[in-house]
Amino acid sequence: MSTQNADPRAELKRKAAIEAADMVREGMVVGLGSGSTSAFMIEELGRRWAEGLRFAAIPTSERSAEQARSHGIKLVTFATHPQIDIDIDGADEVERGSLNLIKGLGGALFREKIVAAASRKFVVVVDDSKLVDRLGARVPVPVEVATFGWTATARQIEALGARITQRMDRSGNVFVTDGGNMILDCHFGEIASSAQLQAQLAPIVGVIETGLFIGRTSEVIVATATGLQKLVAA
Amino acid sequence: MSTQNADPRAELKRKAAIEAADMVREGMVVGLGSGSTSAFMIEELGRRWAEGLRFAAIPTSERSAEQARSHGIKLVTFATHPQIDIDIDGADEVERGSLNLIKGLGGALFREKIVAAASRKFVVVVDDSKLVDRLGARVPVPVEVATFGWTATARQIEALGARITQRMDRSGNVFVTDGGNMILDCHFGEIASSAQLQAQLAPIVGVIETGLFIGRTSEVIVATATGLQKLVAA
Repeated sequence: MSTQNADPRAELKRKAAIEAADMVREGMVVGLGSGSTSAFMIEELGRRWAEGLRFAAIPTSERSAEQARSHGIKLVTFATHPQIDIDIDGADEVERGSLNLIKGLGGALFREKIVAAASRKFVVVVDDSKLVDRLGARVPVPVEVATFGWTATARQIEALGARITQRMDRSGNVFVTDGGNMILDCHFGEIASSAQLQAQLAPIVGVIETGLFIGRTSEVIVATATGLQKLVAA
Repeated sequence: MSTQNADPRAELKRKAAIEAADMVREGMVVGLGSGSTSAFMIEELGRRWAEGLRFAAIPTSERSAEQARSHGIKLVTFATHPQIDIDIDGADEVERGSLNLIKGLGGALFREKIVAAASRKFVVVVDDSKLVDRLGARVPVPVEVATFGWTATARQIEALGARITQRMDRSGNVFVTDGGNMILDCHFGEIASSAQLQAQLAPIVGVIETGLFIGRTSEVIVATATGLQKLVAA
């Protein structure tokens, strides 16, 4: 328990992020996630970099890249480092048991998925408010789609039972991803089989990528009020 | 047989394109393909537009849009016309029997596939040099991939047995699609099952879309030296 005047949930996330940063060893290639938990992790990695730990990092968003740069962390690209040792990222929902995820409320799902897919180990850091029995209960599935023909794409997703809202930015304009595409937030409610839903969404022409991360998680570090908990893929 | 001093193959393609244009009826929403055969088709539709035929067109590339505009053809978007009545396009290879296609050597595969997927009827126009017993024998499968992490994506496609070349433009720079992505030309040789290959390529993270068009063709109009031939999906 911190005696400082800090947000207790933020303190828990920081603890979990430090635990994850602990897995980064000298010489590794490391995927840097995006979002508030990842920011704590990058901050901790920056501290260790200053102490002499050396590794190569591949960021999943421009914001994470900037933060890493500000700590002097060495950034590399896939071209020279195609195999990533460990990728550490947050999630919007984690399904107990399967450890399947919903990600992408921050808008970086495509890069996050590419980095996760190229990593030997994918570690997810969340606080316990993100754990659910079934994905989709509280957050929509973000789906990145091509702008060209997006209404036709949306109708096909609706046919799978989704209520769709078009992601907007803070200025009220259509949100544009790093890749120049749109995001449709697809509200399915509780998803009986997220693997099956992914298999239905992926082949829809116009769908670039979905925020469903199926069977990719190696380990989840969960910050709870009474300490850290680890969930490992069966 | 034309008695003019024209390329005989071009004359055959023009004949086939006119046959396809014949399917466009008053009031239809029409997908306009890309490439040399589609250019003949758009020219013919322009002639019919001048004679009073009225329809709404959704082009699959900037070039087709320009050509249609030059004839005064009314262009619309998916937002107002989500259901397309007929889409007419060329192909780089057509598999006899299945009528599965390889498309995308022109670089517009993603838009072409979105339009084909939204169409009640998808008509392909080719000359008989494009007919093959097995897809992949003569042309590579173009795969549109995100630039971010493309080497990791390429390695996964190579693991399926492809030799990969990166698409370049005429100036020797990396070719950039309308969607801002790259194209990898994936040489598989003769593909035993194109449906299975598509099912293997589609879930690879980083793959935006492939040039394999599986089970989408309604009809193929083939220009042969001795006349037109029609192939219809079983």
